[in-house]
Amino acid sequence: MNAEIITIGDEILIGQIVDTNSQWIGQQLNKIGVSVHQITSIQDDQQHILNALKEAQERVGIVIITGGLGPTKDDITKKTIAAFFNDDKMIEYPEVLLHIKALFKKINHPFKEVQIAQASLPSKATLLMNHFGTAPGMWFYENKTVFISLPGVPYEMKGLITNEVLPRIQKQFKLPHIIHKTIMTYGQGESRIAEKIEDFENNLPPHIKLAYLPSFGRVRLRLSAKGVHKENLEKELDCKINELYELIPEIITGVEDTNSLEKRVGELLTKANKTIATAESVTGGKIASALVSVPGASYYFKGSIVAYTAETKINLLGVSKETIDSQSVVSKQVAIEMARGVKQKLQTNYAIAVTGNAGPTSDHNSKGVGTVYIAFISDEQETVQEFNFGQPREKVINKTVSKSLEILRKEIL
Amino acid sequence: MNAEIITIGDEILIGQIVDTNSQWIGQQLNKIGVSVHQITSIQDDQQHILNALKEAQERVGIVIITGGLGPTKDDITKKTIAAFFNDDKMIEYPEVLLHIKALFKKINHPFKEVQIAQASLPSKATLLMNHFGTAPGMWFYENKTVFISLPGVPYEMKGLITNEVLPRIQKQFKLPHIIHKTIMTYGQGESRIAEKIEDFENNLPPHIKLAYLPSFGRVRLRLSAKGVHKENLEKELDCKINELYELIPEIITGVEDTNSLEKRVGELLTKANKTIATAESVTGGKIASALVSVPGASYYFKGSIVAYTAETKINLLGVSKETIDSQSVVSKQVAIEMARGVKQKLQTNYAIAVTGNAGPTSDHNSKGVGTVYIAFISDEQETVQEFNFGQPREKVINKTVSKSLEILRKEIL
Repeated sequence: MNAEIITIGDEILIGQIVDTNSQWIGQQLNKIGVSVHQITSIQDDQQHILNALKEAQERVGIVIITGGLGPTKDDITKKTIAAFFNDDKMIEYPEVLLHIKALFKKINHPFKEVQIAQASLPSKATLLMNHFGTAPGMWFYENKTVFISLPGVPYEMKGLITNEVLPRIQKQFKLPHIIHKTIMTYGQGESRIAEKIEDFENNLPPHIKLAYLPSFGRVRLRLSAKGVHKENLEKELDCKINELYELIPEIITGVEDTNSLEKRVGELLTKANKTIATAESVTGGKIASALVSVPGASYYFKGSIVAYTAETKINLLGVSKETIDSQSVVSKQVAIEMARGVKQKLQTNYAIAVTGNAGPTSDHNSKGVGTVYIAFISDEQETVQEFNFGQPREKVINKTVSKSLEILRKEIL
Repeated sequence: MNAEIITIGDEILIGQIVDTNSQWIGQQLNKIGVSVHQITSIQDDQQHILNALKEAQERVGIVIITGGLGPTKDDITKKTIAAFFNDDKMIEYPEVLLHIKALFKKINHPFKEVQIAQASLPSKATLLMNHFGTAPGMWFYENKTVFISLPGVPYEMKGLITNEVLPRIQKQFKLPHIIHKTIMTYGQGESRIAEKIEDFENNLPPHIKLAYLPSFGRVRLRLSAKGVHKENLEKELDCKINELYELIPEIITGVEDTNSLEKRVGELLTKANKTIATAESVTGGKIASALVSVPGASYYFKGSIVAYTAETKINLLGVSKETIDSQSVVSKQVAIEMARGVKQKLQTNYAIAVTGNAGPTSDHNSKGVGTVYIAFISDEQETVQEFNFGQPREKVINKTVSKSLEILRKEIL
């Protein structure tokens, strides 16, 4: 079964916001065996919406529309969908009206006339109750195509997808399984890898696809399989992954975890009953905030010292002024001393520290833009590694965070 | 002039990555007066790409295609575009081949046969030299439509858009100006605002559009104008904004800065020659990393203490154990003591501190999930505010960061 996602709203087209809704919906649909054929972002314009609905209907069996369901004049999705279904008439749902009034009462806002229309839906719609907001979701089934209209507010959309849309799709359609597994490689470009696995790639069965995802010195190889038997697909993919391990053993660094690195680090620390702290310069607290993004982080993460100036490194982390003067603030020795300082101050089992130059200018130290040192220390050992993450600034910072988490995972294992 | 953006790659459709390229391209096109009519994400599939090109050609004058230009089998954009232009033949560009070989030499990777094809382009293409990677950009002009094909790697795409695509579009077309101004309001829902400005909205001229952008208790009102004379448009929008100030003075909190909040805070601090530090609990260093994302942050940002446990708050920030025991770790008094502690330790002019409970559980303190305290102190004053940012965890953390930056901007002003 194929689906299309249509997002309605000028704010996406003018670049005022990033469309993260579609990514999330794509992930959820994949998990239940629905492939996303296309994602289309269109304007708040009646004719444009009508065209998009018509085109999508010709291509796929499931059309998910987000956005444009608010009570104001620029929100025209509902009346446009009614027009699309042969000028369907509106029906008021008393239970929705009660729900909206209750929401307004809860936040102590006076209920307004203009909200009444929120409780009316085209007669062909099946109501999908939105417990987190005023705009109900809608489900239509016409000419063997399901149309689902949802509000664009992320947490309202997510609630409706999880509680209403996915179970209904699973009930309506017999769905295959779709499985993705991604191998991480490091150190060779995609063209070189492609040469080495040419036969492997040519001999893949039609229901397994290979994709190369290059980024900054590493290439991820994604294998996607689609079929009826989930267990068979899993086995087939594992087989293919083993073949890859034999073909390019020297560059594979592992199978991508469906969990984020920070979540994996959290699991390892919780299991080992160990604690950690970070000392950060160039990343400005971004490693700490990645760790904290995981619920329950307070069991293992004690804190961080973000020492952005030499002065702060000396005063708060106890880095020696002599080290900074002789080695420069971006150096192996400073990274190690930062790690020692934070580990001692926060009394943890592990500590990770980073110092580097993210640019754009290479001002107050002798190391070039992109140079980063990452130190990891435990009760037993101290290690420090040098990297050059190039440019621009944003890339250096992000690469430092992900490399630090990778080092953490590896060392804690 | 209208444009469409077509992004090619299964990784977007399965939700493996977020399509941030389209947002950035949308912003850049808007700045030179090009409206984005539609953004379409499609599969690495020849027929799908051909259909998308054909449909876009019928709708707009500029089609920008990103992705699918790598050297591996799953990258089929170039040969598909050649097929689209009546099976155009390929021509090798020696200067591109030299450039690719030089790139490989620079990173010390052996040059591979499969890369040679990267240096060939359809004969109808104008070469857009990609200085940051191996896949050249391409520019076609056929039947009054411009087609531009670019690599999907963000920094390669950005380099080509900035240096090659935008100047060529400006040369090729006579473009209008597009201006957006966004008013920020707080404390009333969109339906209530819509009632109050109904006449204003009904009387807007056709070249000015109004959009409501609600999120978490605030509604942004975006006015967009399109026309020939930039100065006149600016004046018209300023006029309309003044009208709004008269209609809903009690809820407008300002005009949205096109700069990010952290950049604005950085400018204010640099200008005032003042320094700042943060003490963070619930945000885990995210306020610090937002500040650090701005180049030159080391001139005013000294560092941060991320104190994620009560113990760290006491040992590193000097929060009194009595305060924590009597008021709980999520309290006004703890926020204030954290701010005092970091300001004193890092010797700054300003400090901001946050403590809160992001959930999902309300474990080791008495305050409910979503409760956050933000304290700001300077040499002259101390303030602390209480917020409830609801759920889920991610929202609480992000709202705390943006509210902290808002408070910083306001207080430093």
